[in-house]
Amino acid sequence: MTHKPEYGLIGLGTMGAALALNIAEKGNKIAVYNRTTKVTDEFIAASGALRDQLVATASLKDFVAAIQAPRKIILMVPAGPIVDAQIEALVPLLDADDLIIDAGNAHYADTNRRFKEAETAAYNFLGIGVSGGEEGARHGPSIMVGGAQSDWEAVAPVLRAISAKYEDTPCAEHMGAGGAGHYVKMVHNGIEYADMQMIAEAYAVFRDGLGWTSTQVAEAFEQWNTGPLASYLVEISGKVSRATDPVTGKAMLDVILDQAGQKGTGRWTAIEAQMLGVPVPVIEAAVAARNLSAKRDTRIQGAERFGSPLQPLTSDDITPEMLEKALTAGKILCYAQGFEMLDAASRHFEWSLPMSNIARVWREGCIIRSDMLGDMAEALDKSSSQNLIFSAPFCDMLMDCESALRATVLAATKAGIPVPALAAGLSWFDTMRTARTPANMIQAQRDFFGAHGFKRLDDVDAPHGPWAAQ
Amino acid sequence: MTHKPEYGLIGLGTMGAALALNIAEKGNKIAVYNRTTKVTDEFIAASGALRDQLVATASLKDFVAAIQAPRKIILMVPAGPIVDAQIEALVPLLDADDLIIDAGNAHYADTNRRFKEAETAAYNFLGIGVSGGEEGARHGPSIMVGGAQSDWEAVAPVLRAISAKYEDTPCAEHMGAGGAGHYVKMVHNGIEYADMQMIAEAYAVFRDGLGWTSTQVAEAFEQWNTGPLASYLVEISGKVSRATDPVTGKAMLDVILDQAGQKGTGRWTAIEAQMLGVPVPVIEAAVAARNLSAKRDTRIQGAERFGSPLQPLTSDDITPEMLEKALTAGKILCYAQGFEMLDAASRHFEWSLPMSNIARVWREGCIIRSDMLGDMAEALDKSSSQNLIFSAPFCDMLMDCESALRATVLAATKAGIPVPALAAGLSWFDTMRTARTPANMIQAQRDFFGAHGFKRLDDVDAPHGPWAAQ
Repeated sequence: MTHKPEYGLIGLGTMGAALALNIAEKGNKIAVYNRTTKVTDEFIAASGALRDQLVATASLKDFVAAIQAPRKIILMVPAGPIVDAQIEALVPLLDADDLIIDAGNAHYADTNRRFKEAETAAYNFLGIGVSGGEEGARHGPSIMVGGAQSDWEAVAPVLRAISAKYEDTPCAEHMGAGGAGHYVKMVHNGIEYADMQMIAEAYAVFRDGLGWTSTQVAEAFEQWNTGPLASYLVEISGKVSRATDPVTGKAMLDVILDQAGQKGTGRWTAIEAQMLGVPVPVIEAAVAARNLSAKRDTRIQGAERFGSPLQPLTSDDITPEMLEKALTAGKILCYAQGFEMLDAASRHFEWSLPMSNIARVWREGCIIRSDMLGDMAEALDKSSSQNLIFSAPFCDMLMDCESALRATVLAATKAGIPVPALAAGLSWFDTMRTARTPANMIQAQRDFFGAHGFKRLDDVDAPHGPWAAQ
Repeated sequence: MTHKPEYGLIGLGTMGAALALNIAEKGNKIAVYNRTTKVTDEFIAASGALRDQLVATASLKDFVAAIQAPRKIILMVPAGPIVDAQIEALVPLLDADDLIIDAGNAHYADTNRRFKEAETAAYNFLGIGVSGGEEGARHGPSIMVGGAQSDWEAVAPVLRAISAKYEDTPCAEHMGAGGAGHYVKMVHNGIEYADMQMIAEAYAVFRDGLGWTSTQVAEAFEQWNTGPLASYLVEISGKVSRATDPVTGKAMLDVILDQAGQKGTGRWTAIEAQMLGVPVPVIEAAVAARNLSAKRDTRIQGAERFGSPLQPLTSDDITPEMLEKALTAGKILCYAQGFEMLDAASRHFEWSLPMSNIARVWREGCIIRSDMLGDMAEALDKSSSQNLIFSAPFCDMLMDCESALRATVLAATKAGIPVPALAAGLSWFDTMRTARTPANMIQAQRDFFGAHGFKRLDDVDAPHGPWAAQ
């Protein structure tokens, strides 16, 4: 009799199938189940050499019976009510120490709720954020785990084995209790939106300001991918800029409609940052840009009514080297905001998020993977709650890149090329170095109309202006 | 026997006391109740000539008994659980057709929930947003009503009587069912944040760029209050700039700490706009600026570490006339975003919000009251769901002011004076006139890493790039 698998996985869609094969490939037997048996059959038929590691099951009861207790059952089903329905169906079949692992794109608040529900029932629960798309799930994703330390330890060897590796370090870490894993994944996605938007803004300056072809743009991104901006997103920006459309023979970029979609996780990040009172203006600008891109008819109407704001730029206004530095500054500022948000969330939710290890699990496997994250991890090791802009080497990089960022924002603004994310980064940075803001005006107004009071620079105790007596 | 009052009011804090006196002054008897009887006694003692219209009560039971059925009971207690507790305590004492009116600062979602609870119980409910602070509540607030048409009609004569009047038109209107009134009030407050922030940015350009004294700033605001920017907020900006500190004899503004507080309604607006997918970047920038103003220690640390970004400006860079036009454009763009959000909310919640009447009730009584809102009402009468930037006279005003807005953002950005709200407005406007954005790059990236697909400009059916085959 061969031994039963310890692991099971429910949901053999693109991501689930890839993750199951990844687990099998690392030497683990795994039971699989899909609501539609045909999907399971096709998955098994296509599993090749990994077939012996897979135990196909045709009912939930058979699935649970096929796994050795204490069971580790991974859910990879669409986020939302389907997860709850799946848990509800599973629970009566489980033993007391079994562990349900939600590896889908849950909102962290749903994950928190599911932990509460698990507490009153007889099963354990983990919520894990998995980043890297199908390719990552199959060959090494970045994995962010939320839940009890003991449950993390029970699955850590397998999660580390299947995760991406940065050099020899697995990109799988325990983030904290409850929804911490899905929360960190959410902020990852918010940063991803911002990274992509700033790249798109640089592309717009090349295309609309300097009049470059996609091939010229590809050369710039390829060049940038050898410097401080080296990252997966800059790499693929080079590749998509280089690609030719098989249908028309034109540059691929030039035939793609400029309406960006979204799955909502950038929006979640913006909302949660507001909840915490932590400004993430670069991420907000990126979410807004996607929403505005979708309003193409209105934009075309605007261009007709008001005329295009576009003015050409020359190499006297802007150079690829300046743009590279501007993007480098923008990236640092965006991550500084993201990590500040995580630090605030860590305190708010009492998670003790491992700040530097968050940067480490993002170094490989996930969409925002980049060389710079290694330096960020080191900076966060030294001071996890100090804003990243104050830590070496980033303070020096910012000083070096600040004038290029300002020149880029000025040139683009003058040329009518919207660079909302880069501009929001610069405004945030300028505000972070402004000892005396004009918020005294706002406090005066609030005291005038609402008697809200204010503090004084000289600490004199006179909380209202003379208008209060009028 | 004198007749009993039809109205009652619970909660004699600043706002409740002012509203009760306003109601009494308009010829309505009103019963009042406060948890602490001493507060009620003091209120009555200070009520002067209105005393005969007031019926003081010392218990909730006496309060209800003192009112003629069907009762109209206004709650003016702190938003949140206290409202629920008050309703719970009231309900057993009420008759079937009695009406509870929550006039506090409820979040619209709480108001929606309270309407659902009221449906299953034997009382009617209205949620009304009241704007204008203590002064408004006492002498004429702007009133935004949510609930059933019949309940609105039952109280409309009194609400109209106590409301602010714009010329002869009462600033009290029915917004729609459920939480519509509190929702419109929330967006009002988001716009208020943005109006205040843009004024503060103009002040910063004067103070930090041109080196003006507060008295010089006061003169500019006083001048602006006679032109297209004429509004309560510009008026009081002139007054607070003109004021002298009685303690030190310095300009009042110069002794007030630059840390702005908030009560959260601007943040709610930013969150709800994200929920709807409607960008309101000017409001987001204003909320972020308040949050950043609070981080004074970090900003001072930033100024030390990076140096102040400030460079002086001269009248060659910027003039008060340019700033006035920039602020005019910023204001139009901010309101265009706010009304777009309301239009989206109207459809999302199936409220049929009366767009032009929203502009009308904001013309007097509330904090954002301004002359420009009259023109906005007329524009929204002609087309309530077309973005305001396309409507006369605002399209022409934008064309006239656009270059001043751009010059202001450029000058301030060059000088290191953060103008995040004005800059966000300009970026948004430029994007709204950009027929071809760089979002094709984002769609290419999304297809590359996640097989999300894209549409093509030429409508050829080939939803993936050639990289999909790699």
